[in-house]
Amino acid sequence: MGKEKKWILTDVKAGIWVESFAAACEKKDHKKRANWCIVKRQLHGGLTEGVDIIEVNNGALSFTIVPSRGMGLWKGTYEGCELGWRSPVAGPVNPMFVQGSDRGGLGWLQGFDECIVRCGLDSNGAPGEDVVPDNNGNPFSVMLPLHGRIANTPARRVEISVVESGKTTELVISGIVDEGMLFSPCLRLETRISTIVGSNAVTLHDEVVNLNTVAREMELLYHCNFGEPFLEQGSRFVAPSRVVVPRDRRAMEGLTGYDRYQGPTPGYVEQVYWHQLCSGRKGDTVAMLRNKAGNKGVALRYNVKQLPCFSQWKNTVGAGEGYVTGLEPGTNLPNAKRFEREKGRVIRLAPGKRHVVDLTLEVHTTARGVAGVEREIAVLRRGKPIRVFSQPVADLSPGGN
Amino acid sequence: MGKEKKWILTDVKAGIWVESFAAACEKKDHKKRANWCIVKRQLHGGLTEGVDIIEVNNGALSFTIVPSRGMGLWKGTYEGCELGWRSPVAGPVNPMFVQGSDRGGLGWLQGFDECIVRCGLDSNGAPGEDVVPDNNGNPFSVMLPLHGRIANTPARRVEISVVESGKTTELVISGIVDEGMLFSPCLRLETRISTIVGSNAVTLHDEVVNLNTVAREMELLYHCNFGEPFLEQGSRFVAPSRVVVPRDRRAMEGLTGYDRYQGPTPGYVEQVYWHQLCSGRKGDTVAMLRNKAGNKGVALRYNVKQLPCFSQWKNTVGAGEGYVTGLEPGTNLPNAKRFEREKGRVIRLAPGKRHVVDLTLEVHTTARGVAGVEREIAVLRRGKPIRVFSQPVADLSPGGN
Amino acid sequence: MGKEKKWILTDVKAGIWVESFAAACEKKDHKKRANWCIVKRQLHGGLTEGVDIIEVNNGALSFTIVPSRGMGLWKGTYEGCELGWRSPVAGPVNPMFVQGSDRGGLGWLQGFDECIVRCGLDSNGAPGEDVVPDNNGNPFSVMLPLHGRIANTPARRVEISVVESGKTTELVISGIVDEGMLFSPCLRLETRISTIVGSNAVTLHDEVVNLNTVAREMELLYHCNFGEPFLEQGSRFVAPSRVVVPRDRRAMEGLTGYDRYQGPTPGYVEQVYWHQLCSGRKGDTVAMLRNKAGNKGVALRYNVKQLPCFSQWKNTVGAGEGYVTGLEPGTNLPNAKRFEREKGRVIRLAPGKRHVVDLTLEVHTTARGVAGVEREIAVLRRGKPIRVFSQPVADLSPGGN
Repeated sequence: MGKEKKWILTDVKAGIWVESFAAACEKKDHKKRANWCIVKRQLHGGLTEGVDIIEVNNGALSFTIVPSRGMGLWKGTYEGCELGWRSPVAGPVNPMFVQGSDRGGLGWLQGFDECIVRCGLDSNGAPGEDVVPDNNGNPFSVMLPLHGRIANTPARRVEISVVESGKTTELVISGIVDEGMLFSPCLRLETRISTIVGSNAVTLHDEVVNLNTVAREMELLYHCNFGEPFLEQGSRFVAPSRVVVPRDRRAMEGLTGYDRYQGPTPGYVEQVYWHQLCSGRKGDTVAMLRNKAGNKGVALRYNVKQLPCFSQWKNTVGAGEGYVTGLEPGTNLPNAKRFEREKGRVIRLAPGKRHVVDLTLEVHTTARGVAGVEREIAVLRRGKPIRVFSQPVADLSPGGN
Repeated sequence: MGKEKKWILTDVKAGIWVESFAAACEKKDHKKRANWCIVKRQLHGGLTEGVDIIEVNNGALSFTIVPSRGMGLWKGTYEGCELGWRSPVAGPVNPMFVQGSDRGGLGWLQGFDECIVRCGLDSNGAPGEDVVPDNNGNPFSVMLPLHGRIANTPARRVEISVVESGKTTELVISGIVDEGMLFSPCLRLETRISTIVGSNAVTLHDEVVNLNTVAREMELLYHCNFGEPFLEQGSRFVAPSRVVVPRDRRAMEGLTGYDRYQGPTPGYVEQVYWHQLCSGRKGDTVAMLRNKAGNKGVALRYNVKQLPCFSQWKNTVGAGEGYVTGLEPGTNLPNAKRFEREKGRVIRLAPGKRHVVDLTLEVHTTARGVAGVEREIAVLRRGKPIRVFSQPVADLSPGGN
Repeated sequence: MGKEKKWILTDVKAGIWVESFAAACEKKDHKKRANWCIVKRQLHGGLTEGVDIIEVNNGALSFTIVPSRGMGLWKGTYEGCELGWRSPVAGPVNPMFVQGSDRGGLGWLQGFDECIVRCGLDSNGAPGEDVVPDNNGNPFSVMLPLHGRIANTPARRVEISVVESGKTTELVISGIVDEGMLFSPCLRLETRISTIVGSNAVTLHDEVVNLNTVAREMELLYHCNFGEPFLEQGSRFVAPSRVVVPRDRRAMEGLTGYDRYQGPTPGYVEQVYWHQLCSGRKGDTVAMLRNKAGNKGVALRYNVKQLPCFSQWKNTVGAGEGYVTGLEPGTNLPNAKRFEREKGRVIRLAPGKRHVVDLTLEVHTTARGVAGVEREIAVLRRGKPIRVFSQPVADLSPGGN
């Protein structure tokens, strides 16, 4: 059994909120282990005014968790490499400046600059009309804006813990974020974000709970976004894809090179590919973005039973616009919810039930590390060919064939 | 003449704002009187970030006033009984997180967890299109979202005073909340919220002033919400109703038991009844929610000349969804404003004129106290029968007969 | 070369934010020069909660800059005369309380109480539908709300500097405000707001930069608003107008007295006139509002090459509604953007390019000062007659002839 230290930083019900906090490796641990520290503070100025952040440094990998933005992972660094991207927005942005219904339902983008941002929980994907029951139980047409509310909802509870077990130390940030209101689905995100001291990885263990006494729908997508140095001219997307489908006509244009990236390209219009990934016996899979030289890579490890869908978002626009690619495992594809429901990809949670997701972001800065992940992916594929569809498919894209 | 002490906590024009404040009963008053205290502080974390609250404890009854939310009464306790309800929302919620136009105009619910929340001042009720004059004086179609803006508008002035008069001490929280902008109605709420030390009651004395030099419309409804222990399976609504009308077909289903409540019922769809209440010679009336045993009750005392309309909102959904009933006296019924205007229930205030409301919330935790209010109600009814309409009425409900 | 002192108050990227700051004239400068001071602080309470302001007093003229509101100039005073107006809104208002899409796209007015507020940068003017490229490069219909986003966007960088050069001391507030997000125009406002110690003027040197690598549109209008004592019954608008055109039928009603003002008039409906101003050889011009007696005036100096359009907004409503007139030089007229684009008045900025504007607000409190500006204006006009159109013009007003 390990030894655990805990600190509650926020608990709305109990009236607890800690403005600033720091915990760090003590001297006695100093011998072989890496130094680590966890700092909680509040940002001020510009769009960051009042944002709570938790900076975690495990001695090798560092990253920032943002309780004010639904416990997203803002940015990180590993061996001098930036994790994340350069959004036109200088965040992390306080949700008070984000108006989801702006610009035809794309207002979510006003706050979008994270490395890992969850899209959900009631809905995610493109803005679109949906029909929901109103307070009288009658069908009621509403506009669901882009990517839902969870990323712009502050955590009601935040806890830090440090778990020592044998020679390993685990740093843990736990949070609870409630999305809901009267007459609407009430869904809770319980997240446990952890990293082993000295490691190259951070893991999100998320559970989405239906707090209602009636069944509720949910959608959840992990929008994992990377720019330089992992994304560059000649970077590659490597994954055990069994099927690759272009989202639309624009994606068809780049189909032959779907897994290769351009450098920053002014005027570039996004290309999106739907992937179906092979997995191991228990459903485990891994997808990676690697640089041209093959000595830098970011890999996502997750389970296709938990996250059956995967979207590859290529947005290699000019540097000023936000040069980025998104690797996006999800319970669904980021189409408008109505379409996803029709296609059977919206989860229905019974009262009190949970949907559990484990997602690990792993960083490699050596050719050997990158090659290791590529070998794993080859094993997962088991020599099967990739089936690349030449056109959009009706089951996956509105307007597809 | 009494002795009065005053403290200004907020005055935007004068640049006054006090982050934290406390006043309490001094020793010399200790003999027979109850201890009392008033504490002002700012909340942090989650949706409560930055919310100013004033906690008042009169020695027996305690309650929280929220300047950040239009001087609403958040929650209270009396003799160990909670006043208020368990909303899916963990507030009090900073208005910066509330976007009224969300979800088809129901975004107001994102902040709804109070015991007493005012709905108004320019409009309240169901979301709906309305035609207002634009900056050019031309008719302009706008969407009025649910329940208006006053509950999501912070007070521009807040003052505490303690008034001693003979053997009684009165604790008073006064506030000014301005709703308005250029080319729109500018209405001011001046509220004086008071409680006598040791008593079981709190009184809102509200005045709504038209700040413009042209006549303006106003609507005001007091959404008074209670859950357990006052609401439970077998609780009853007791009031000197002369007329009871179901709002819609759904309300017709529960008509025979309109005054009785179910326990938490997953999947329950709200039922609403319009009441016309008898009153005393000066217009005074009282309505009560009491528990099954008849030894716990919350009574609302007000004047039907000030608040001619009354809505009983039954929303006995599951505990996770927000098990609650609302007793809602108002200047109008909570229908869309356009409908209420057609039916002549929207007040028109001449320039500088005021609409005054006095509303008292009184709590009983003895069978004797509850029975006393029931006797009062019987006297007000003067033996007249209650006329219960079997169907919605065109004058009161859109789509009624 | 002058001597310069600098202080950075906000820099989001560098993590700098100073809660309060003061700089003032030191004793050694005391002999003949006026005392000056610069104070930065944060407001609390009501709609001002959390707003950063910078109060500048040059010894004669004082004014308040609001980093939280896009570096607007809130109010000022000179020789006991208020600069600005009495809006129904008690600000400066934190943008978190402003929801632009409210009330048919007029929500911007919820925060409108400044003396000088910039309208832009992607769009300004009346709310209206526009077609923009979506994330897929396809045309997408969106609602552009009144006057755009820049006034409700906090500055990401704020710097104070004091520049001494010979016998003059210049007080400078510099700020950077970014408007933009993924898939939308990213425009930066770099502003340098300066005043010479002891002078009667403040100058805005603004540069709008296209941060994208593709060409982007921009609109920019300076909404300069004045009430008493400069505006009163009998006040006059004095400018070297070559052409005056009523915006609409309502403006036609007041055409003969377009340059004269009424006192506060309950029920007054705004009248707007488009002006084309004469200018000097380099494009410099000046427009003034003066009081009836001609001993108080506010003059705007700017360049018609930078700001070719001018709108005179007469809104002499009752005192409670916001008695005010706006003098509004702009790159365009405040019509809906779509109309302005059709008429060729929307600027297209190449990648990295800038649009530069210099605007000076000058205050006079003597008959001699006012007469001096009137003489300047007469010289600019060079004896040419003013052409006053009797009707709206199709090129300038939607629905014009």
